[in-house]
Amino acid sequence: MERRVAQRPAVFLLRIALCVEYEGSAFCGFQSQPEACGVQDALERAVGAVAGHAASIVAAGRTDAGVHATSQIVHFDTQASRPDSAWVRGVNAHLPDTLAVLWARPVDESFHARFAARARYYTYLLLDRPQRPGLNARRVGWYHRPLDVHAMADASAFLRGTHDFSAFRAAECQAKTPVKTLLALDVARDGELVRLDFAAHAFLHHMVRNIVGALVYVGSGRQPAAWIGELLAARDRTRSAPTFAPDGLYFTGADYDATHGLPATRRAVS
Amino acid sequence: MERRVAQRPAVFLLRIALCVEYEGSAFCGFQSQPEACGVQDALERAVGAVAGHAASIVAAGRTDAGVHATSQIVHFDTQASRPDSAWVRGVNAHLPDTLAVLWARPVDESFHARFAARARYYTYLLLDRPQRPGLNARRVGWYHRPLDVHAMADASAFLRGTHDFSAFRAAECQAKTPVKTLLALDVARDGELVRLDFAAHAFLHHMVRNIVGALVYVGSGRQPAAWIGELLAARDRTRSAPTFAPDGLYFTGADYDATHGLPATRRAVS
Repeated sequence: MERRVAQRPAVFLLRIALCVEYEGSAFCGFQSQPEACGVQDALERAVGAVAGHAASIVAAGRTDAGVHATSQIVHFDTQASRPDSAWVRGVNAHLPDTLAVLWARPVDESFHARFAARARYYTYLLLDRPQRPGLNARRVGWYHRPLDVHAMADASAFLRGTHDFSAFRAAECQAKTPVKTLLALDVARDGELVRLDFAAHAFLHHMVRNIVGALVYVGSGRQPAAWIGELLAARDRTRSAPTFAPDGLYFTGADYDATHGLPATRRAVS
Repeated sequence: MERRVAQRPAVFLLRIALCVEYEGSAFCGFQSQPEACGVQDALERAVGAVAGHAASIVAAGRTDAGVHATSQIVHFDTQASRPDSAWVRGVNAHLPDTLAVLWARPVDESFHARFAARARYYTYLLLDRPQRPGLNARRVGWYHRPLDVHAMADASAFLRGTHDFSAFRAAECQAKTPVKTLLALDVARDGELVRLDFAAHAFLHHMVRNIVGALVYVGSGRQPAAWIGELLAARDRTRSAPTFAPDGLYFTGADYDATHGLPATRRAVS
């Protein structure tokens, strides 16, 4: 029998960055799962179909089950040379309807969707009214009593800046350190909707949803604004409020060095 | 054997008005269907559970499959005396998560959700960008090329007022007359989203979606604004554009005489 010689791997790899948006309630989170129900699974299937070979997708921020994205930045390496439009329209033709590529751009190998991200952005939409959501089910969080947005904004001042966020960190968080820098945290009301906008270099696991839970304790009058400062100082997750629902959470983008030449990498929730 | 005497029916009936919102993609339209997949079916089941007897729901506007509502007004008659909160929270506990009651109010028998409505309102949201929707799949219509919103606004001037709308009427429409009065039709752009707001005493079947289809022909440059006037005059549905998708259509409320004492009966799409 002849000895088979392994095919020589392609030496020339292209790295492609994509911006994707999705409705998270149809997925079991971003990350690939054995059941193939992750956003990553859907993207890898669709990119693989266009590339003609298996592809691995890396994301700026791995979102939990039920969390949405207006501008998730991902990248993959490929041996296939395709026009940008194939990575948009061609991939979209293979994706489920609640997931879409908005743009594709070749990048050099110094780009990495996760490690090159300088900041990440989230928005939480919280429906504040007596009746549960209907039209926007799975797209907004919900609190049934009137929230004092001014108290929530006061409380958020304790959180902005560099702190040990252990009080807002999930037990399963794999970050090396609980010290993170919250670059922005804005709370505002627009009618029945309370909107919380977050920016940080990086977030701990469940950090945004845990902060939302604690700020709702303040907004509902259950705790004073200063309690947030005490929580931070105590660094004890068990003293904080429960993790808020994923439904209202949107990953809204990431910042990269301008030298990568990407189109817009952030998109506000409209 | 003893003859059984039918129980005397309750003589005192209460009429209850509800405002409901829903995400239409989970339903086969408003109207009750043999498969029980209509919004009406879900409401009748839930109201029936709270009332303890079968209830018939009448709506201000029967929406097609896939069409949403921010403020659908309905009524039903009941022998059950319940606090308003039971008709809201109690009914909501029996409804699927994409359908919710926003308020309930007892009304006298002069109120009728359909026949007492003096005007009805719709909004169409049209995503205007090269990439298909992902995050807002099933919640917006889509056109892939840039639309000239000014041309669409010019064209809409032909439609406002009282006209024979046969050119925009579905074959299966059961209205007595094709003559309707379009009280308002506004076209505006907000970034990638083109928004069309409609008001009329009453609409023909598919009238809004047929008008959207024709206005997209104008906005894309396929037809001039004046073509809309020609279509109206010709009164021939076959010369118009195809019916646009239901995905972007929202029933946003109805007007009733103030003497009925209802809470707000209109809610803008946010």
